[in-house]
Amino acid sequence: MSDTVTISLEEVHKLATAALTRQGFSSEQADAIATTVAAAERDECKSHGLFRIPLYIQAAAYPSTDPTATPVLSVTESSVVHVDAKSGFCPLALQVGLGPLRDKATEHGIAALAIHNVYNIAALWPEVESLAEQGLVAFAFTGANAYVAPHGGTKPVFGTNPMAFSWPRANQSPLVFDQASSVAARGEIQLHGIEGKPIPEGWAIDKHGKPTTDPDAALAGAQLPFGAHKGSSLALMVELLAGALIGDLFSYESSTRHKSKVGAPFGGEFLIAINPAHTLTDGNTEAAQARAEGLFEKILEQDGTRLPSTRRFEARQRTIVDGVEIQVELRDQIVGLS
Amino acid sequence: MSDTVTISLEEVHKLATAALTRQGFSSEQADAIATTVAAAERDECKSHGLFRIPLYIQAAAYPSTDPTATPVLSVTESSVVHVDAKSGFCPLALQVGLGPLRDKATEHGIAALAIHNVYNIAALWPEVESLAEQGLVAFAFTGANAYVAPHGGTKPVFGTNPMAFSWPRANQSPLVFDQASSVAARGEIQLHGIEGKPIPEGWAIDKHGKPTTDPDAALAGAQLPFGAHKGSSLALMVELLAGALIGDLFSYESSTRHKSKVGAPFGGEFLIAINPAHTLTDGNTEAAQARAEGLFEKILEQDGTRLPSTRRFEARQRTIVDGVEIQVELRDQIVGLS
Repeated sequence: MSDTVTISLEEVHKLATAALTRQGFSSEQADAIATTVAAAERDECKSHGLFRIPLYIQAAAYPSTDPTATPVLSVTESSVVHVDAKSGFCPLALQVGLGPLRDKATEHGIAALAIHNVYNIAALWPEVESLAEQGLVAFAFTGANAYVAPHGGTKPVFGTNPMAFSWPRANQSPLVFDQASSVAARGEIQLHGIEGKPIPEGWAIDKHGKPTTDPDAALAGAQLPFGAHKGSSLALMVELLAGALIGDLFSYESSTRHKSKVGAPFGGEFLIAINPAHTLTDGNTEAAQARAEGLFEKILEQDGTRLPSTRRFEARQRTIVDGVEIQVELRDQIVGLS
Repeated sequence: MSDTVTISLEEVHKLATAALTRQGFSSEQADAIATTVAAAERDECKSHGLFRIPLYIQAAAYPSTDPTATPVLSVTESSVVHVDAKSGFCPLALQVGLGPLRDKATEHGIAALAIHNVYNIAALWPEVESLAEQGLVAFAFTGANAYVAPHGGTKPVFGTNPMAFSWPRANQSPLVFDQASSVAARGEIQLHGIEGKPIPEGWAIDKHGKPTTDPDAALAGAQLPFGAHKGSSLALMVELLAGALIGDLFSYESSTRHKSKVGAPFGGEFLIAINPAHTLTDGNTEAAQARAEGLFEKILEQDGTRLPSTRRFEARQRTIVDGVEIQVELRDQIVGLS
């Protein structure tokens, strides 16, 4: 293992911001990205933490990317709010769109947000968690590059295509999940490769369509959807929602914009927010939340179960106080970019 | 194999209606149920076909059920439409609610329908397919009884909790999937039991939490979610959407209403409909559908792949012309109820 250093979450944010602004990101884009990166470090989601900063910088260097883009909000009579990210990154586009989405959902009971023309390499849980903290139930969907073979096939078409969901809870962090349609996140395969470890069976096939446990062969081949045809259907659903439904690129179209498939995915993100005050006939959201707590207890009374995101929230308790451990090599790399 | 007889889809509908009305269902409830049963036979979804008629009749005999209920529609300024099924069955409640849902979604871009206090033993694909035929993208979610253990646990808490999704296609049947959060549908395990066949490994555990291939042990134990923790998260999401979000019962609460767990699930159904004309910045729904067709071709150009529901639509082509094969024993049972 490499050496690590413990730094505060404020320092994470500062490190990220300094590198991004030095590399040509506007202060708004840099601050929004640094906020999601710091949130990921806070929750010990290392693959979305400072590890991503060099990837953002790499993506900003594409001729088609604008790291100084100002997202353009469009709010009409419709309950669908639009943000054109103008070839910038998703965190700032979300900052612009989430408030209007919340307002529309609060007023009409349900609303949607479409983020267009966006580079998206962040997790989806921050946005659905934020909406749930404001009392809304939320979904988010986004594509990626062509990494995942449709069930029965051998060639990548779908992205890892995460969907996220959140449920508001009284006096504690929302219930949130954010899961890829593939068995494993792509970053996990990459990490196995870096560490020289084989990947578990069932994660991927090689470029000839044969099962493989070799990370490099997997990355050159195709990842597999989780749960066979059912995960494949979910991956297809995400392609449609974050692609054709909002007029943005499919994962396989995003891929072809880059000579290599390692480029940052470019496309859309689609979100739905629901106001429980409208879905409950009595409007009693407190009682509904209390009922949900009863369900959660029913799950947790069994040994071996847990609620999604529990690990993130536990990590958060620690890191807010104690700071986070960062690899010295990564820290130095980011300082070198500043 | 038992003897079969071929009958037309009109005869399926007539058989179902005669039995239901004879057993005390109102003509409206009977007609709506018979329509979904005939649609299932048409698509060769045998487990939702005439096979269900005795189950509907069994459910109608509970003191709490009203097979003559008139669903009550509530439409306000909100984009969430409500139907109180008044302890009747779901097909009629959907007939009442789908039009207003379509109208709200068409006007506002996105809308929801909550069906309350409903007995639901039908598939979800008819309603999302119907919405897609009207140009909308749709989701449906419903719970069941406590059949499925949360990931890591051994005791059933979740229902088989299907979610359905649909996408409109020009000049052909919509893309539709309707999939349980469990590895297998409960009916499939029951069918294995009737046929004296073991179930595949991974479908279920016995009441001691041990893996089992014995259908009876599986039914007395717990089904497993598909895709481990990911399917379990989806099952939890469906509990929240069709339960706490709309003020209806969770699957485990539905179970406790019956002395045995074989009773028809009672609770809610939640639907979302989206108007692509609002999610596309150019409003060009034809172009969006054409783009989706490109994605479908990209999938289908690989050997071994198929789109969800293809088998249903292929069956439909045949059965509309040739009629459907029904087991003589089942036909006679239903005639005997008439």
